[in-house]
Formats: sequence, C-alpha cells, structure tokens
Amino acid sequence: MKSQPMAKGEGEVAGVPPGARDLLLDTASEIMRDRDVVDISLSELSLRSGLNSALVKYYFGNKAGLLKALLDRDWQTIVTSVDALVAKDGWDPEAKLRRHLWKVVDTFYTVPYLNRLTMRVIRESDDGEARRIADSYLSPMYRAYEQLIGDGVKAGAFREIDPQLFYFTVTGAVDRFFSARLVLKHCFDQDTLTEELRDRYREHTIDIIMAGILAR
Amino acid sequence: MKSQPMAKGEGEVAGVPPGARDLLLDTASEIMRDRDVVDISLSELSLRSGLNSALVKYYFGNKAGLLKALLDRDWQTIVTSVDALVAKDGWDPEAKLRRHLWKVVDTFYTVPYLNRLTMRVIRESDDGEARRIADSYLSPMYRAYEQLIGDGVKAGAFREIDPQLFYFTVTGAVDRFFSARLVLKHCFDQDTLTEELRDRYREHTIDIIMAGILAR
Repeated sequence: MKSQPMAKGEGEVAGVPPGARDLLLDTASEIMRDRDVVDISLSELSLRSGLNSALVKYYFGNKAGLLKALLDRDWQTIVTSVDALVAKDGWDPEAKLRRHLWKVVDTFYTVPYLNRLTMRVIRESDDGEARRIADSYLSPMYRAYEQLIGDGVKAGAFREIDPQLFYFTVTGAVDRFFSARLVLKHCFDQDTLTEELRDRYREHTIDIIMAGILAR
Repeated sequence: MKSQPMAKGEGEVAGVPPGARDLLLDTASEIMRDRDVVDISLSELSLRSGLNSALVKYYFGNKAGLLKALLDRDWQTIVTSVDALVAKDGWDPEAKLRRHLWKVVDTFYTVPYLNRLTMRVIRESDDGEARRIADSYLSPMYRAYEQLIGDGVKAGAFREIDPQLFYFTVTGAVDRFFSARLVLKHCFDQDTLTEELRDRYREHTIDIIMAGILAR
C-alpha cells in the first residue's frame, strides 16, 4: 500500500476523479461476481470503470494491492455488521441467529467470490500479512460465533454446538451455493445469482440450520 | 484422451511400468491434497511418482487430460458408492442418510480438492465436455438425493426439504471445512487434515444435519 496517498481525501488529489478509488473497487467486485472468477484484467477494469488503469498503480501499487483492498472493503462491512448484531440489545439469540443467516445469504449473493478471494490473498501473502487478515476478519467472526452460540446455549435456546465448526457449516453451505453457478448452469440451465433462487436458498438455509441448532 | 491406448491393459505396453497410469493419478491426487491446490507441476509429479513425465503425454495427452482423468476417477468412486447406498435393501432412509454423511466427510478428507477441481475442469472445458461431466457425475448425485430425501419424506422420517438445495448445504458445509486449511492454520495453528479433527467435524455435521432434517 506504499503508493497510496496518506491522510488525503480522494477529491484533493489533482487530476484524479473524485471517488475513483471506490469506483475501481466497485468495478473489480462487479467483474468477479459477473464472471465468477477471483481475478481481473486491468484492461477490463479500465474499460468498465472508465478510469485509466494507471490509477490502480496510484491507489493500490499493483493488482495484488487492489485485490487486498477489495478483500479489506468486503470483510470490514461484514465484521462491522456482525459485531453490531451480536451487541444488539433486546434481541434474543434465536432472533439474532436468524437475522445473521439472512445476512450471510445476502452477503454471498452480493460477493460470491469472497471465500475464494480470501484464500487466494492469504495464499499469496507472507506470514505477517496472512496473520493480519486472520486477526482482522476471521478471528472476529469466530469470536462473534462464540458469543452468539454461547448466549443461545446458556439461554437454553440452542443445543450444545461447537461454534467454530458451526461457522464452517453455515458459511460453507451458503458460499458453495453461490459459487456453484457453473454446476447449476450445466446441470439445470439455471443461474444461481437470481433473486428468486437467492430467496429460496435463504428460506431453505434458515429452515434447516435453525432446526439443526434449536433445542427441542 | 486421443493418445490413450484403447482396450489395452497397462502391463501390455512395452517399456511402461505396470500400474503407471494409476500411480500418476494417485500421485497427482496426493500433491493436490498435500499442497492444497488444484494444479500440479509435471516435474513434481515425475519426482514424487518416480515416473518419466513423458508418460503424462502418453496416457493423458497433456496436463489438462490428467486433471480430467483424476476428476473421472474420483467422481466415479463417489457415484458408484452413493448409488449402491441408495439401492441398499433393509436400511431405512435415516440410516442411509447418516451413512451418506459419514462418507461425504471421508470423501472430502481424502480428496479435499474435488470441488475446486470440478469447477476448474468445467470452466476449462467446452460445452460438450462440461455437459458430459454434469451428466456423468453431478446429475446422478442430484438424482440420488431426490431418491434418498424423497423416500425419507414419504416414510414420514424427514421434513419436506428440497433435495437439490440440501445437496448444496451438505457438500458445501463439508467441502468448506477441508478446503479452509489456510484459515485454520493462520487463525488457530491447526491443520484440518488430521483424523482427530475429521472425526470431530463428522460428528458435528451428522448431528446438525440430521437434527435439521428429521421430522419431530
């Protein structure tokens, strides 16, 4: 991130369109979602965003920096939202978990590439950077699950479930669905990224997971 | 597959060690599992198998052919095993599903790369080949789920669950666990590919999925 201007609003940089950094990230996200990949070509990014690809160098150093910035953007949104949910007063653990599952489906519908991008960036990072990603995004998610599931078990609402393993069950089930577009396309001529299918899968997920965790 | 000798046992080919084709596939599978990737270098394959990498060209045409042959090998095992389970007399749907979940965890423990390899090969195939993979492996899995879940619903053992969506829930949950080794490594200094963790995740998966689907 060395080439990113420190403590300077985007609008202040001479010759750079305001909002250019966000627009690059939005466009990169769109490309990955539309094309079902975790890579982008800088020429396509430039074409779709209408921005000069030199701005990638300017803001992110290189493509790897852009991918990392996109990862940060997407994960920060998730962690902030989960933390707020867990801290919410007046909601019981069951209501919180239902709401969380609803949001997880939304998230993977919006950023179906996120798990694969995370693995890719971790794989291409040195140990320090991998540790930063784990500490900033993955560990907070586990802690949120520990809190949310632990509260529910204590309240007698949930059965005894390992929160760490439960995290993989939930995110795996949802991520897999939206990242299996190729399968659905060739097996059923279906696109998973439709709102109708998202809503059906959401209903299914909430139904089966809640039945799986609720105390009888 | 054009370069593969037709209707000729491996032992009969002059100058080629018996079992060489299987050994190449076994070694490719080991490399992907150990390194958590869905690619192999032919030099590593040669080094680890002790076989000349020219044999890849001989049996599979090229690396893409090798990957496809590995995909075929792994999926044929799965489809044969699932078909046999569904057809088994004297087991009720609940027992069959429990046994199936047990096997799914075993499968992804053994070939944790399978989902990613499937996506990769489909992505790199033309429409005809993608259709063949879907028809040969994915569609039979869906049909098996339809049968297994349908039988359980009819028998009053299972709640009404969409078998197609349920397929994604199950395989996603399991696949994600064993393909998230990097995450566990950096968050918890854990390796997911241990028998201890496999057994814990198996117990968790069977517990939560069965609770999710069984009629009350």
